[in-house]
Amino acid sequence: MSDNLSAPSYIRGIEPYKAGKPISELAREKGLQPENILKLASNENPLGAPESALQAVREAATAHNVALYPDGNAYNLKHAIAKRLGVPAEWIIVGNGSDELMGLTCEALLEPGAKSVYSQFYFSVYRIDTLACGGTPVEVPAKGFAIDLDAIAKAVTPEVRVVFLTTPNNPTGLTISQADFEAFLGKIPPSVTVVLDEAYREFVPEEDRIDSIALVKKYPNLFVTRTFSKAYGLAGLRVGFGVNSSELPELVNRIRPPFNCNTLAQAAAAGCVNDQAFLDRVYEMNRSGVKQLEDGFSSLNLEFVPTKSNFVLVHIGPKAAELNQALLDRGIIIRPCASFGLPEWIRVSVGTADQNERFLAALKELLAKLSAA
Amino acid sequence: MSDNLSAPSYIRGIEPYKAGKPISELAREKGLQPENILKLASNENPLGAPESALQAVREAATAHNVALYPDGNAYNLKHAIAKRLGVPAEWIIVGNGSDELMGLTCEALLEPGAKSVYSQFYFSVYRIDTLACGGTPVEVPAKGFAIDLDAIAKAVTPEVRVVFLTTPNNPTGLTISQADFEAFLGKIPPSVTVVLDEAYREFVPEEDRIDSIALVKKYPNLFVTRTFSKAYGLAGLRVGFGVNSSELPELVNRIRPPFNCNTLAQAAAAGCVNDQAFLDRVYEMNRSGVKQLEDGFSSLNLEFVPTKSNFVLVHIGPKAAELNQALLDRGIIIRPCASFGLPEWIRVSVGTADQNERFLAALKELLAKLSAA
Repeated sequence: MSDNLSAPSYIRGIEPYKAGKPISELAREKGLQPENILKLASNENPLGAPESALQAVREAATAHNVALYPDGNAYNLKHAIAKRLGVPAEWIIVGNGSDELMGLTCEALLEPGAKSVYSQFYFSVYRIDTLACGGTPVEVPAKGFAIDLDAIAKAVTPEVRVVFLTTPNNPTGLTISQADFEAFLGKIPPSVTVVLDEAYREFVPEEDRIDSIALVKKYPNLFVTRTFSKAYGLAGLRVGFGVNSSELPELVNRIRPPFNCNTLAQAAAAGCVNDQAFLDRVYEMNRSGVKQLEDGFSSLNLEFVPTKSNFVLVHIGPKAAELNQALLDRGIIIRPCASFGLPEWIRVSVGTADQNERFLAALKELLAKLSAA
Repeated sequence: MSDNLSAPSYIRGIEPYKAGKPISELAREKGLQPENILKLASNENPLGAPESALQAVREAATAHNVALYPDGNAYNLKHAIAKRLGVPAEWIIVGNGSDELMGLTCEALLEPGAKSVYSQFYFSVYRIDTLACGGTPVEVPAKGFAIDLDAIAKAVTPEVRVVFLTTPNNPTGLTISQADFEAFLGKIPPSVTVVLDEAYREFVPEEDRIDSIALVKKYPNLFVTRTFSKAYGLAGLRVGFGVNSSELPELVNRIRPPFNCNTLAQAAAAGCVNDQAFLDRVYEMNRSGVKQLEDGFSSLNLEFVPTKSNFVLVHIGPKAAELNQALLDRGIIIRPCASFGLPEWIRVSVGTADQNERFLAALKELLAKLSAA
């Protein structure tokens, strides 16, 4: 008799998510000081969390409050988000990061025999969450680096229950246009849930954003997800949310862990959701950082995908893995892209001007060394 | 064509978890001041969170740190727990509360056609998490209020993959003995995972605790879960953990949301895991609170289940629901037990001496009124 635990065979086939290496881990591995390590691997906010959020955390972090369960219905946070977006609070689902919402969506909608569809170059959680429910993931080839919406619409067979789309997409930084997206929605049966993952929305120039909340009002099968992890600078606290006008919030509430978003995370997000001054600073700094990085890549004759987000996908060539190791030796963490099916590319998060400069200088030096070797 | 989203039929059959009513919600409903509301509904720690945890939160809550993703591998926290328990860090799984670990365990092990088993009078998450995977829950009748381990062992048919046991059990407060539990483990096939939920372990008198970590070393199919939500006073932060010597940590890691436990929660838990002085205070206060409540119930001629935990199950009779409403009107939240199948009983968390006194006084007065009515 085998000593293995009885488990579904599809679970044993899943490859776990590979996250950007944490600073503390690299410090342990290389004997480096954490404060000397530069992490441009996980598209985090180099300006840090806003003071409006930190203030709310300090107020909420009392002995009494922390000992009580969180409000499982996230009343204050949901109402703050709802007011900002102009939708009823009942349309909002709050998650322990928007990645948790991807898992809950799959759990609420998929089962063995059912399928999800997403584009080539995708956030690997879509695939993992589909497989975890015994569902079948369908990956649709991109057109170059762009999501091929026509091909995705054609892939929506009767077994398909969820479509995942990301704009701007990760790791490409490319957006879907309003017109293309609305045409796409028109082709999808109303029983199929379309998840529009807008984790990076706040970095996108106004003219390239989809008016996604208006579309939520029009399409009951559209589920728009956003996060406080990126532009709002709260990755460590895990808060994301989704908006759907139909029955998805109610379905997800049946299976959601009842206290999935912690008290300090709810307080922080409610504290900064309307901090437009902070978002404006983040946007400006990011656009000038994008220019700095893209100019740097151009001057090194490196191909890159022009980004609307807070990261840039850049072509290194066959020595990309070697470059990654050499950067780690210097205390610089970027994201190698082999797991995206792009072994010759790396993804670099946009940092502050100084951080971008440090990265570009190291890149220049190491590329010269590698090509000489 | 129906406008319903395509979803598994078993999802639509799930009743969502009913949590204890949050103080803020009652305050809104009744126009009360939150500071005048007494919540004895969710077995929270009336001493609050320990200063060791709050200090760690303050240190971790910097703008820079909060903007970075948490360590998805929870290195520091896992190593602190592992050292305290005397097990390898690889045996530990950290969850967003131990309730998340119940869900991940079901997701990792169950699929349509597979079953889980638990006793009558159970934490409803066991049932919800089983149904969410398309699994079939099997509820085994208790013997009086006690878990019937023989009957549970007999219910472990070939389709069963998970058994949930809780000691002390919720809502009864009764424990399973070391001898009975070990005899039970000897009857269970090694492919079936036995989850021993010890959320309330720290409240149990030493002689009534199971040496569960020694048993984890002996039985690869045993998964012991504990939490920082109860005795450690961190319910608002969501940290639990589980220990298994076999392949469960690796299976769960395939499907776990990569950043499930937030940065401040990890810091708080690592900060207080060895705060034995706090745990000792909590233990002493709880035991004297138990005596106060049980003496109070005796003097009111109310039947109760003698508890080893931080709550007491007490028999009110046919007017239990009315009593609950009358207590809410006075700003006192306890847990009605209809959802546990015990409509004539209520569950009261042990508070401070003053809180217990306020509750007992209100109870006495309201019982007199209700019996006069």
